[in-house]
Amino acid sequence: MPTEQQLHVAMQAYVDALNKADVEAITSLFAADGTIEDPVGTGVHPAAEGLARLVGALPSGSTFTLDTPIRTSHASGAAMAFTVHTEIDGKPVRIHSIDVMQFDEDGLITEMRAYYGPSNLTAR
Amino acid sequence: MPTEQQLHVAMQAYVDALNKADVEAITSLFAADGTIEDPVGTGVHPAAEGLARLVGALPSGSTFTLDTPIRTSHASGAAMAFTVHTEIDGKPVRIHSIDVMQFDEDGLITEMRAYYGPSNLTAR
Repeated sequence: MPTEQQLHVAMQAYVDALNKADVEAITSLFAADGTIEDPVGTGVHPAAEGLARLVGALPSGSTFTLDTPIRTSHASGAAMAFTVHTEIDGKPVRIHSIDVMQFDEDGLITEMRAYYGPSNLTAR
Repeated sequence: MPTEQQLHVAMQAYVDALNKADVEAITSLFAADGTIEDPVGTGVHPAAEGLARLVGALPSGSTFTLDTPIRTSHASGAAMAFTVHTEIDGKPVRIHSIDVMQFDEDGLITEMRAYYGPSNLTAR
């Protein structure tokens, strides 16, 4: 089982890589058979493919800021609340998300689920 | 599927009921076969039994405050980050948790998972 410290470092690395729009760095945090569902309810996709699409679609200047400390657990799961400042169709928006991760023995992410609904996306 | 508004109302009701230490109100938000895992990694329990034990053990004056807006989803899941001010062995502590819920067709909670690890519990 990954240590709590490993979970914390991986979660922070995920946010940092998003802020750099660094697909390679993000993908390296996932297990080879890792999956993402972003947002929850829109379908589960292989991580490599889904992350490349997600990050590739990010307008430059998009930022990801933790709202409150990263939560770990007493097992191989962790969760974090953050706010995305980005643009959709050229309009500045704010997205409030909570991403929940499951990790494998080696501390790689096997599952990422992003919780945000239509009301969590607002104009700014 | 519950509406986004139903998810939001239920999540807020959960926090409100915790602040009143109202076991009956909290339990009424769960499906009959609902479960809780609080915190993740310490075992899954039937909601009624687990909630009665959790709330029963809360020192009076414990408070639960949302850190950031409730997140819903495009399906029947929702998540929220909150901070608990409570006491453990007479010592004031702060617990940072993220609770992730799954709901049934009727908008009742079928699964609650609370993400917090040892490092999310700090003296205050």
